[in-house]
Amino acid sequence: MSGITSENSIIRLLRDRYAAKSALVKEGIGDDAAVIRPTRGGEYLLITTDMLLEGIDFRREWVTPRSLGCKSIAVNLSDLAAMGARPLFFTVSLAVPADITKRWILDFYDGLTAPGLSASAHLIGGDFSHTDGGISISITALGQSTRRKVLYRKGGRAGDFLYVTGTLGQSAAGLRLLENGCVRPRSRAQKEAVRAHLSPEARCATGMWLAQSGLVHCMMDLSDGLSVDLPRICEASGVGAELHIADLPVFPESSLWGCDPVEMALHGGEDFELLFSVPRSKAHVFEAKYPSRFPRITRIGTMTRDARKIWLVEAGKKRRPLLPHGYDHFSRRAAGKQIP
Amino acid sequence: MSGITSENSIIRLLRDRYAAKSALVKEGIGDDAAVIRPTRGGEYLLITTDMLLEGIDFRREWVTPRSLGCKSIAVNLSDLAAMGARPLFFTVSLAVPADITKRWILDFYDGLTAPGLSASAHLIGGDFSHTDGGISISITALGQSTRRKVLYRKGGRAGDFLYVTGTLGQSAAGLRLLENGCVRPRSRAQKEAVRAHLSPEARCATGMWLAQSGLVHCMMDLSDGLSVDLPRICEASGVGAELHIADLPVFPESSLWGCDPVEMALHGGEDFELLFSVPRSKAHVFEAKYPSRFPRITRIGTMTRDARKIWLVEAGKKRRPLLPHGYDHFSRRAAGKQIP
Repeated sequence: MSGITSENSIIRLLRDRYAAKSALVKEGIGDDAAVIRPTRGGEYLLITTDMLLEGIDFRREWVTPRSLGCKSIAVNLSDLAAMGARPLFFTVSLAVPADITKRWILDFYDGLTAPGLSASAHLIGGDFSHTDGGISISITALGQSTRRKVLYRKGGRAGDFLYVTGTLGQSAAGLRLLENGCVRPRSRAQKEAVRAHLSPEARCATGMWLAQSGLVHCMMDLSDGLSVDLPRICEASGVGAELHIADLPVFPESSLWGCDPVEMALHGGEDFELLFSVPRSKAHVFEAKYPSRFPRITRIGTMTRDARKIWLVEAGKKRRPLLPHGYDHFSRRAAGKQIP
Repeated sequence: MSGITSENSIIRLLRDRYAAKSALVKEGIGDDAAVIRPTRGGEYLLITTDMLLEGIDFRREWVTPRSLGCKSIAVNLSDLAAMGARPLFFTVSLAVPADITKRWILDFYDGLTAPGLSASAHLIGGDFSHTDGGISISITALGQSTRRKVLYRKGGRAGDFLYVTGTLGQSAAGLRLLENGCVRPRSRAQKEAVRAHLSPEARCATGMWLAQSGLVHCMMDLSDGLSVDLPRICEASGVGAELHIADLPVFPESSLWGCDPVEMALHGGEDFELLFSVPRSKAHVFEAKYPSRFPRITRIGTMTRDARKIWLVEAGKKRRPLLPHGYDHFSRRAAGKQIP
């Protein structure tokens, strides 16, 4: 800190800057708890929480405080997007070591509340503390279901087509660049990849549309990589899956810096794209209705009866099982998220 | 960890153990977000969040994982108690270093969900991660107002009497014992003090009664010590205060191990008692109505017009200002909370 800055003065600053503008917030930052008016009777409230730790989830030297704020909130809003919910509020617990300046803290909060990313989500409270370790960020976000339509992981059926939004493996390719010391990306592809890793966008509008469409059976967001997350949605739905390698929306430019785009798409984490299933009989209608203003969607495979078995299908080759090599905090076999 | 325990398996265990039993929870642990039914239209939802960090807020060698869980949830429920709210749900972000066993983690969650302390609050989600630093715990708790009656810090008026629940300085006296190496307290007073520090109780039932009584103007919980928290409630209410030293509900037994009970009551943190104001004209009715089953209450002073000035009054002495020597994470002048 620049001099001794008291907890009180930081909280006072945040309260003045982020006075709640939502009509649903009766009292925001500054008291023992925030007070919100309940949402309309017919809808559900959704709650999600995610933690980001320095050295595990990010490196301070790679991020500006603003982009760290953006990413921290995006990670949480992505969980709401994955259920088809509208983001409403969030709280932030932040612990920082002594060498973090007040400027850094305020820039971080600016990132958290940056318009565009969290336009509709309001900061309504939090906790602020000193730590002897690295920066620790924990966010809890609340959202509201759209017309009681919530998409769970468990709704998938054998025969459903599997879709993803956007591009897979881009964030992992960006992380690889950063790990290789590429602090200033040059080409458009490099910039895209690093941006995908440092400043991901939560697919909130897309998720809400998908939930309201009535055409989607199950959904989740891809945070730990397809090879870790696809088994999760299959397990919840009691089905297996077949993935068609040739159909994956890979990020081919990453081969320019030594990545295997297919491996990155399968095992890279933190893409924060949506993975969802649509019944085969409605796929045509669904694809026709899907709005062009949203990120492109790609059909990547099928849910199968063969519960919990995930197969990779490639032309001219024998199908092979998809093994989880994505990120798992405890097994530490990261392809695309973990910092060594 | 005992062997490689994956994030998946921990979450699966928690999901099975803590499947939500509340009718308000549509989906609890296990999906991207928890889904709750809104509360009845006439009530507010309250949200609070608190972080506990190893080395800052607790020392691992002093606590069992179960008592750490109890304390972590009590700290959060105390914030809801301070607004007069009924606890409903909570989420937990937990990051642990590699030497923490699965048994430790499960015992911690057992403490979080121990009946009695958090009987009415349901664990509905969280995040779980590895860290290279110390244990990091961040909890977000949701509560519901009782008949729209919420008590804020800002409702105090000049002339109000100030009250506290329970005993002040007991937790700080317990911390002093622990700091002096007293791992096994012997006397009843020592046991009480250590228990007050390690396993505080949130005053939820009392807080709800106080909010519903209609006789209380403002309220907060004492987490950082009277000398830090009283100025906060006074600032929010735009008033000052006079404290009568002789009236403080001190913990006299702490003098047996070298503490000054008055100093501990003024500056010791983490008592998690309630501080509130009652208009002078209703004090008599209030004291008569206050249920004997709740912790005793003590009138400790008066709110005054002299905004933001807090005076200590002692018989036969000149009144003197109360200076904040309680705990502030950044100023690090702890009397009763900080670990050196």
